[in-house]
Amino acid sequence: MYINLSESEKKALLIKESESLENYKSKGLKLDMSRGKPCKEQLDLSMGLLDVLNSSSSLNKAQDYRNYGIIDGISELKDIFCTLLEVEQSELIICGNSSLNIMYDTLQKAMQFGILGNKPLNQQGSIKWLCPVPGYDRHFAITEAFGIEMINVPMNSDGPDMDIIEEKIKDPSVKGIWCVPKYSNPQGIVYSDSVVKRLAKLKPAQSDFRIYWDNAYMIHSIVDDDVKLLNILKEAKKFGNEDMIYIFGSTSKITFAGGGVAFIASSVKNISSLKEKMSIQTIGYDKINQYAHFLYFKKANNILEHMKKHAAIIRPKFEAVLEILKTELASTGIANWNIPQGGYFISCDLFKNTAKRTIELAKSAGVIFTPAGSTFPYMQDPNDSNVRIAPTLPPISDLPIAMKVFCTAAKIAYLEQS
Amino acid sequence: MYINLSESEKKALLIKESESLENYKSKGLKLDMSRGKPCKEQLDLSMGLLDVLNSSSSLNKAQDYRNYGIIDGISELKDIFCTLLEVEQSELIICGNSSLNIMYDTLQKAMQFGILGNKPLNQQGSIKWLCPVPGYDRHFAITEAFGIEMINVPMNSDGPDMDIIEEKIKDPSVKGIWCVPKYSNPQGIVYSDSVVKRLAKLKPAQSDFRIYWDNAYMIHSIVDDDVKLLNILKEAKKFGNEDMIYIFGSTSKITFAGGGVAFIASSVKNISSLKEKMSIQTIGYDKINQYAHFLYFKKANNILEHMKKHAAIIRPKFEAVLEILKTELASTGIANWNIPQGGYFISCDLFKNTAKRTIELAKSAGVIFTPAGSTFPYMQDPNDSNVRIAPTLPPISDLPIAMKVFCTAAKIAYLEQS
Repeated sequence: MYINLSESEKKALLIKESESLENYKSKGLKLDMSRGKPCKEQLDLSMGLLDVLNSSSSLNKAQDYRNYGIIDGISELKDIFCTLLEVEQSELIICGNSSLNIMYDTLQKAMQFGILGNKPLNQQGSIKWLCPVPGYDRHFAITEAFGIEMINVPMNSDGPDMDIIEEKIKDPSVKGIWCVPKYSNPQGIVYSDSVVKRLAKLKPAQSDFRIYWDNAYMIHSIVDDDVKLLNILKEAKKFGNEDMIYIFGSTSKITFAGGGVAFIASSVKNISSLKEKMSIQTIGYDKINQYAHFLYFKKANNILEHMKKHAAIIRPKFEAVLEILKTELASTGIANWNIPQGGYFISCDLFKNTAKRTIELAKSAGVIFTPAGSTFPYMQDPNDSNVRIAPTLPPISDLPIAMKVFCTAAKIAYLEQS
Repeated sequence: MYINLSESEKKALLIKESESLENYKSKGLKLDMSRGKPCKEQLDLSMGLLDVLNSSSSLNKAQDYRNYGIIDGISELKDIFCTLLEVEQSELIICGNSSLNIMYDTLQKAMQFGILGNKPLNQQGSIKWLCPVPGYDRHFAITEAFGIEMINVPMNSDGPDMDIIEEKIKDPSVKGIWCVPKYSNPQGIVYSDSVVKRLAKLKPAQSDFRIYWDNAYMIHSIVDDDVKLLNILKEAKKFGNEDMIYIFGSTSKITFAGGGVAFIASSVKNISSLKEKMSIQTIGYDKINQYAHFLYFKKANNILEHMKKHAAIIRPKFEAVLEILKTELASTGIANWNIPQGGYFISCDLFKNTAKRTIELAKSAGVIFTPAGSTFPYMQDPNDSNVRIAPTLPPISDLPIAMKVFCTAAKIAYLEQS
């Protein structure tokens, strides 16, 4: 434990670790651990998607998939997603290539037009949003762009702190919450049944409060036994609360990132209202890519099988990262991290006030991590402690050295300030 | 000329035409002339697009097209569009599958965030928009949804009435204009060089006025000699006015409708600003479809050759419609129409106050036309006169009877009220 070291021991260790870092610097590394991107081998898994359609394919169905129309997506693919999500066709819209885009658009529509007859959020004065932290930087970027005041809600090991949420939603200016309920970004936490149930029966002060349920990693287990997340839409129905739920997801981390299909699921009322507004915005999404996805997978179960291949590729990468963290930092007492069962990240909490410096030092040796603070609204981690580690993109052979650089940097950052 | 008929002649003719309509009704027709959709044969032209990629394709370029990123589109396809549009790569973003979506989003961003440092349009009180009429119903639906007051500007044979526009833009609350500058929807008018030049050098009262240049039919001639439209961005640069121009387009009527790629071109400043805002909204558009389009066409000239095949399919359809209009209505004096050289529509001006009734009568015989008023803001044609005829979708064999129904209906509508 570093905390027990004497001043002279610390000084000696700082010299040693700094020499290590200089040594790494001399290697001319260029490694990127910053974004949750699939790697080449994962993308290769879906190349068959490009074989299912050719010039002999029949796309001229009851409606011609090559022509305008069908704003909520083709029913064949909706069937598959309905099975995976346990929702009805009338509760689902399959959109374009990006769930982030749907989240942004859905919030923008609420800002501009209001929700189900409520006043536009733009006209409701100063409004607020609940942000479980650490969380997804791109979520926070959206609410920040719209000028919405973000309120940090601490994460527990089974989801966000529900006591705080139940208290905060009594404020009528609180209009929503970001959730990544399964294998959360970055901690890999799966919301417990109890948390999902408490969320589903929230009684917010105003009827235009929405849970933005970003189920980005709904079938993205990296272990054999996938965890079951409770269906929040079903739970919410028990309390007449189904209009409070928006569920988002995509195949970006199933097939191709940015070349997949994304969806929103919600109550029939919300979906009808969104379709009506969408029909001003577009004549329809890309049905050819939707149909290719249907032909490639045919049924929900085949997607689950496909996901096992992803897991087989990325599990060793998670293991490699965790192994180095354990070897290098477990005995130091200057860091804690989660051991995720799925998703795309490992969340590492470093000693207070050392995250920024650690990332800066790692960068000086050619290893890029997500900027410190990214996992918090306004990029402000109150403890300057959390670092999101994304193990999927780099080749597995690069991970040990990248993580050794990280650990060396974390040690130096601690020793410098202590 | 119907106007010269005696009362008894009119009465007799009304009986005769009504009998004709009853006769058509008995045929159980079910024809749709309402939307500018490509027909099956046109869609078949692009089936080769589905052959250019397969599981052996190399998509892992300098960046991997199967992964996140490259928000402004892949450079190979940008090259082709830059050639067609005569713009630079830095003046172009290739987006998703719908130019309507880009127009909507661009205006929504102006409403929410303002343009280049100007106040958000949402915060500027009541604002106005110039709408050349007749025009495109989906444009008007967007400005109506945003609560923008639409001002009709009459179309002349060479574009919108510039005297009126030059006057109206002195009003600082006028924030934009919808233009379909080539083969306009619905009249097929091509803006003359003089009109483009006058638009390009407009000096609006405020710097956040924008010309929404929906170049939907930029290469969609149906005759051998395509008309050349002046490059408005280039013209605008001569007056330091390039920030005033947004150019939109897509391949929806080149390859697949809703399965193509769309773009926006504008000044470097506007494009940079839009990219920055887009990066909150999405991580990138579908690069795989972009790359397929590149592989399929390879160069701009091949797109132009491809468009000749479209023209060969739809030209006879336009001719069939025009032939019936001429045979049935030319001598009556109750209708005028344009003879378009491109685009997707024929615009027919019926006798005052008869458009609604004509469309209602045609519908009673199973032939659907775009609802009367659609070509005007708020669905209000002050003369109840204009009908947009879309000849491309139905089989050519259906067109003569569909148009005979239309002409019979138009005659009845006139005779009923006169």
